[in-house]
Amino acid sequence: MARARAVAGLKTPRTRLKRRPNRGHHDFATIAAILDEAFYCHVAFVAGGQPYAIPTNFGRNGRTLYIHGSFASRMLNELAKGIPLCLTATIVDGLVLARSAFHMSVNYRSAMVLGTATRVEGDEKESALEIISEHILPGRWADVRWPNRKELKATTVLKLDITEASAKIRSGPPVDDDADLALQCWAGVMPLKLVPGEPVADAQLPAGTAVPDYARRFPRPRGRD
Amino acid sequence: MARARAVAGLKTPRTRLKRRPNRGHHDFATIAAILDEAFYCHVAFVAGGQPYAIPTNFGRNGRTLYIHGSFASRMLNELAKGIPLCLTATIVDGLVLARSAFHMSVNYRSAMVLGTATRVEGDEKESALEIISEHILPGRWADVRWPNRKELKATTVLKLDITEASAKIRSGPPVDDDADLALQCWAGVMPLKLVPGEPVADAQLPAGTAVPDYARRFPRPRGRD
Repeated sequence: MARARAVAGLKTPRTRLKRRPNRGHHDFATIAAILDEAFYCHVAFVAGGQPYAIPTNFGRNGRTLYIHGSFASRMLNELAKGIPLCLTATIVDGLVLARSAFHMSVNYRSAMVLGTATRVEGDEKESALEIISEHILPGRWADVRWPNRKELKATTVLKLDITEASAKIRSGPPVDDDADLALQCWAGVMPLKLVPGEPVADAQLPAGTAVPDYARRFPRPRGRD
Repeated sequence: MARARAVAGLKTPRTRLKRRPNRGHHDFATIAAILDEAFYCHVAFVAGGQPYAIPTNFGRNGRTLYIHGSFASRMLNELAKGIPLCLTATIVDGLVLARSAFHMSVNYRSAMVLGTATRVEGDEKESALEIISEHILPGRWADVRWPNRKELKATTVLKLDITEASAKIRSGPPVDDDADLALQCWAGVMPLKLVPGEPVADAQLPAGTAVPDYARRFPRPRGRD
């Protein structure tokens, strides 16, 4: 695991790791790298006294995160009121198979950003949509038809600044009790990776239309700084 | 997309999908299948007025979900007070590359369970730990040393009944506007799958210890009903 380097601002009493502080990171580069590799995030917010965790795509431009959706989205309309939210992105890297059930674990990297979101309009809205699209699949934006006025109106974009955040990382082999090392049990790490399969062309695509190279590129390159 | 079949109880005003109701499902079998295939979940809860979404492992036995962690875990101690929570498990199946940015999408399956958790003790605690372990990797429990009294004491297990829940599923090809079908742009689905890599044996493992078959099995078999 990389050494934790705390950066003023990101580490607060709410993002400090009380347990296993050696798994906690508060430097911006570590948090940004997880956000950039993550395919999507879960956004937690409260509506009517009930917390929700909703999966959604997002994009990053420096210290700003963007999320988007329909202008009718309940989540976005609640968040646009400026209520507290938590955006968490998690990447699973493998199963940690220890010799005891107690030490079974998962290797993962998770970034959590706390804050409030605000509505984005005008030029920033259009560029935010490009940033979200390029986060999902870098290279795609140049090939597609861009949003028209009606589509822009039907879309809500919110931004969230990365001012209070943390990362949690578990990596490496199992940590077993000495007394368990003699057990006749395989131990180690089973890596897990999200990989692309064979592209499935749309039925209405003219025969012979080539699959673009960027569609096969995985994991995707880093976001913008 | 499978047809939605509502089951009394799971569908409530809070789990009803207001937008895109055709993506919403409230039948138990659909929700259970997503939970069983999901590798982990995010649990949303509120502490000090701030919502959090925290990744964690879980297990399912019929209509009961189990989560576990250290007795010192802030999340588990907050949840044990009986505060409202949301457990969401999401599986990404692919990128949906439409001809317009507006219709770009992701194929995914997500299950969301709302409720409150209660502490589990005694025999149910031990069996819950087996259920969580077998959810992570079926077959592993029989091979490892089981928790001793000290480890059980150091572990908190909570349960959550599936009484209010929904699933959201997006599948299939892109849905483009007719006017965009003539664009010279590849369109279709890029499938994504979590796959196991080559196992990495622990450095202290005796040479020649075989990797168990269950460690290579992926996706994992379904949970218990």
